Amino acid sequence: MLKVGIDIGGTKIAGGVVDAEGRIVEKVRVDTPTDTGALAQAVIDMARHFRAGHDVAAVGVAAAGFIDRDRAIVIHAPNIAWRNEPLKARLEDGIQLPVAIENDANAAGWAEYRFGAGQGVDHMVMLTMGTGVGGAIILDGELFRGGHGIAAELGHMRFIRGGLLCGCGQSGCLEQYASGRALQREAHDIADAGGIGEALAALRAETGTISGPAVSRLVLAGDPGATEALRRVATALGEACGGFQAVLDPELFVIGGGVAQLGEDLLAPVRLAYETSLPGYGDRPVAQFAIAQLVNDAGLIGAADLASAEG
Amino acid sequence: MLKVGIDIGGTKIAGGVVDAEGRIVEKVRVDTPTDTGALAQAVIDMARHFRAGHDVAAVGVAAAGFIDRDRAIVIHAPNIAWRNEPLKARLEDGIQLPVAIENDANAAGWAEYRFGAGQGVDHMVMLTMGTGVGGAIILDGELFRGGHGIAAELGHMRFIRGGLLCGCGQSGCLEQYASGRALQREAHDIADAGGIGEALAALRAETGTISGPAVSRLVLAGDPGATEALRRVATALGEACGGFQAVLDPELFVIGGGVAQLGEDLLAPVRLAYETSLPGYGDRPVAQFAIAQLVNDAGLIGAADLASAEG
Amino acid sequence: MLKVGIDIGGTKIAGGVVDAEGRIVEKVRVDTPTDTGALAQAVIDMARHFRAGHDVAAVGVAAAGFIDRDRAIVIHAPNIAWRNEPLKARLEDGIQLPVAIENDANAAGWAEYRFGAGQGVDHMVMLTMGTGVGGAIILDGELFRGGHGIAAELGHMRFIRGGLLCGCGQSGCLEQYASGRALQREAHDIADAGGIGEALAALRAETGTISGPAVSRLVLAGDPGATEALRRVATALGEACGGFQAVLDPELFVIGGGVAQLGEDLLAPVRLAYETSLPGYGDRPVAQFAIAQLVNDAGLIGAADLASAEG
Amino acid sequence: MLKVGIDIGGTKIAGGVVDAEGRIVEKVRVDTPTDTGALAQAVIDMARHFRAGHDVAAVGVAAAGFIDRDRAIVIHAPNIAWRNEPLKARLEDGIQLPVAIENDANAAGWAEYRFGAGQGVDHMVMLTMGTGVGGAIILDGELFRGGHGIAAELGHMRFIRGGLLCGCGQSGCLEQYASGRALQREAHDIADAGGIGEALAALRAETGTISGPAVSRLVLAGDPGATEALRRVATALGEACGGFQAVLDPELFVIGGGVAQLGEDLLAPVRLAYETSLPGYGDRPVAQFAIAQLVNDAGLIGAADLASAEG
Repeated sequence: MLKVGIDIGGTKIAGGVVDAEGRIVEKVRVDTPTDTGALAQAVIDMARHFRAGHDVAAVGVAAAGFIDRDRAIVIHAPNIAWRNEPLKARLEDGIQLPVAIENDANAAGWAEYRFGAGQGVDHMVMLTMGTGVGGAIILDGELFRGGHGIAAELGHMRFIRGGLLCGCGQSGCLEQYASGRALQREAHDIADAGGIGEALAALRAETGTISGPAVSRLVLAGDPGATEALRRVATALGEACGGFQAVLDPELFVIGGGVAQLGEDLLAPVRLAYETSLPGYGDRPVAQFAIAQLVNDAGLIGAADLASAEG
Repeated sequence: MLKVGIDIGGTKIAGGVVDAEGRIVEKVRVDTPTDTGALAQAVIDMARHFRAGHDVAAVGVAAAGFIDRDRAIVIHAPNIAWRNEPLKARLEDGIQLPVAIENDANAAGWAEYRFGAGQGVDHMVMLTMGTGVGGAIILDGELFRGGHGIAAELGHMRFIRGGLLCGCGQSGCLEQYASGRALQREAHDIADAGGIGEALAALRAETGTISGPAVSRLVLAGDPGATEALRRVATALGEACGGFQAVLDPELFVIGGGVAQLGEDLLAPVRLAYETSLPGYGDRPVAQFAIAQLVNDAGLIGAADLASAEG
Repeated sequence: MLKVGIDIGGTKIAGGVVDAEGRIVEKVRVDTPTDTGALAQAVIDMARHFRAGHDVAAVGVAAAGFIDRDRAIVIHAPNIAWRNEPLKARLEDGIQLPVAIENDANAAGWAEYRFGAGQGVDHMVMLTMGTGVGGAIILDGELFRGGHGIAAELGHMRFIRGGLLCGCGQSGCLEQYASGRALQREAHDIADAGGIGEALAALRAETGTISGPAVSRLVLAGDPGATEALRRVATALGEACGGFQAVLDPELFVIGGGVAQLGEDLLAPVRLAYETSLPGYGDRPVAQFAIAQLVNDAGLIGAADLASAEG
Repeated sequence: MLKVGIDIGGTKIAGGVVDAEGRIVEKVRVDTPTDTGALAQAVIDMARHFRAGHDVAAVGVAAAGFIDRDRAIVIHAPNIAWRNEPLKARLEDGIQLPVAIENDANAAGWAEYRFGAGQGVDHMVMLTMGTGVGGAIILDGELFRGGHGIAAELGHMRFIRGGLLCGCGQSGCLEQYASGRALQREAHDIADAGGIGEALAALRAETGTISGPAVSRLVLAGDPGATEALRRVATALGEACGGFQAVLDPELFVIGGGVAQLGEDLLAPVRLAYETSLPGYGDRPVAQFAIAQLVNDAGLIGAADLASAEG
């Protein structure tokens, strides 16, 4: 059975036709319109396009924001002016297929569980280290959505009491310490400090900034300043995983997002911080850590897989 | 159908025969033996006693510690020398009835969900402010046990990075800031400081210490020092609930334990801290707060209810 | 002997002729020019005006920023584009009198020590709770300037590791938690939370914001939300004073700035936090706390008193 | 002019005859008696012994604890049962020479300033990383004692709000994070975590513990676990130095104590943390860092040098 998955990102809408094994049969990308009406229409147009060429049973749509328990209404979105928007009804009107809306981090986590790094376990937590820190929780083989549909906001667990301000209105959220953007901030701080930050400072002098991929390249080249920056965000992530273990007791943590492309260079300090932060370490089963496998396609694959022909 | 629930506490073993509505038909208490063999025998004797007088279908046993997913083995207990102890098999041998082992905080949370403050909701988090801070999570009407059976250790979520040492081997655990014992520590600090701590200091001079119930009595009498001590622990608990909301998105928090007998005096500062700590506050559904109702019987009632005649 | 004191503030330049007892003989105020050249000229003009009418022996100028040990050069100023500016030489050229430049918080602290709340002690620390938190240290009857002239930046002592970003480029600085601006932020948070924040929310709905003086008025009226906001910043300040005691061991803390007009309503929670944060409390002499007395004139009085006819 | 310096340590009393250039002419060591009377007598006996063989003008005695401003009374000592003990008078009775009592960390700092790593600067801060963290402040060429004689308790500056309990009765003191003992604690945590802690765990299995010198040897051998443990305490120390710079603005930090024998392996991460923690970094003069030179003799040399023939 083929289903369509559409992932509404900040700059691009990525859509695909996905089969029952999570393989993408056809895939397209368009720019994300800023107007909400045009955005909905772009999603409808994309779904119709796929429907014209394939025998599609349902459509899943992933978007950042709070989605209600029935996967029908966007309660609040950080980047789009939707407030209690009945998106499912609107899209079903236009597409004439059953539609399910899903939080994008949830969709990505589900895809990893079904077809990626999380295959074979029942209890999994996914953390996506991108601009922010996204989270998804798989419990007993099911995606956990919470009492109002908006659980698993793992990046907004408080990491430091009285800490850095976050876009969510709070302070000290994990994503201020463990995201790709945090990696850049640490790199700038170390560049300012001179000493081991010389390579970072030189890069900034040349390019005007320090991008996340540039930090990653320097880590792979063994630069001590970039390695220190990575160690700081990896330590924050690993410590937070110690707390998530206490609450959720997963068998596996899957780490995704741009920073995760560093692989074992990232996982080694994450594991160390996790192990030195885990309550009852030595007296309890612990979780494994893995890097996400589906990368940029995870959102659309997961959205498609979560959609149902029954609506 | 009648079932037996037995709650193994640090000083007392409380057992009861419980009916399908959570009512206790008969109840007994004995001292907790320190020897593990004597302890297991005391549980067996108590269950046999109940079995002799009632038509009992199953036995549930609540104990502090890590219990495995099959509710058969005590992986680790904080106060008893059990390590990977096959307690279920041992007790079934002695009692000749199906036995299920349950973490005590889980059992208490389940009892509140079924017969107490949590009736009518599907997603509930319980926090017990006793010597430590116990936790239980009800998700979609089921007790959540996690991948290895040891989830919901909410008192061991890190509250302060680099914080107070905890008996679990970690530092900064919530229970160091939000338990009944934390309330006593804060009361001692305020007594030392003089000023608003005069009543606490006078009490300590007279009795040699400042007990939790004594702090509570002073709170109810309007003493500013005791009120400040309560505000500190209530604030810690409320801030932590903001994080639990981000992860678990419950509809209801139930607060139990000795401190919870303060009722609204406790809940008011808890709610304030929760609301000023919740990511996306104002853009999302929030949880309610309630005081636990079953008090000291929650553990045995929950253990009984979770036991199954099918074993 | 008369001396001139000139305090360069963000919006106003206040100047006065000050006698040997710290009394202001004549006083004028003008707007602060934004252009550095016009600013220096305005200071020169003001000094010449005073000189024309009084027998003035020297001029002291207070400004925010890092001033060098010789009180001649503005190393860095937060609000004016001076970088290693030889301000003393420039002003002496124009005024034809000996000029001394002083950090504004230092000048204010010195004035309190000489003529205000600090009279009679030898070791005093002053903290000014304004937009930021200013600091001054009097050691053995002398103003302490440090090895490079820029000591006593007490508002930039780190209060929370990993804490709120500060204008100084760091995170977690005390002034993010204990300033007048922090008081406003806490008031907004409490307004958002509803409950005890109703009066703050109503005020904001009416006026569009919550000003510091408005919070103070609500504190004096007994409003619980405003009182909670004050308690938070007072607690931060008092805890920090515990640390300053460990390092500097003063006999007296003087608290100034707009928030200090709350008097004992401010000092009571400050003292409580200080006493519950002081290492070795009970085994050591402790400091007293007092409210600053010279209010807005402290900067110019102190600058005048620190100026010397010997240059 | 020769003077005697006597350093009362927890296990040994070290004494010496010291000349005007800080050279030790004669030196002896005895065990520290636990009884206060026997301890005072041991100091008297040692001083008399030196007096018999040398032309001694005065005696300086260094001890841990709070010493009053007149250097006469031990207000409180952590390891000896002295409370407001008039030690100067008692020792002068027995020795018949002028005696001055000095805090041991102050004495060591003074020795470094006069004859060791601090020669040539006027403003210096010394931090001793031993069992705890000791502090000394030299301001404008003078030892800074504070308003009651007990300033410069730099190890008891709060580093983490709500942090680890300290022997001083407070929580979160710097010495819980930046001392030799903290280094051992971190090494144990890393050993527990496995992974990079394998060498530490093997060492512990063999010797039953992980001593500070053993960690240092592993650091020098390039072991990643020991290096991580060192990095943690060095980072804490360096961050704290950023705050001390804001308050005290020294030209030089001198780092002493057992951990300081690691030299540049210690200083490199200390400097990095200092530079990424310093308010206004880039816009202000910064301090240098150096390793202490006088090691175990610093206390007695400093005590001797601070003693005065005028009493």
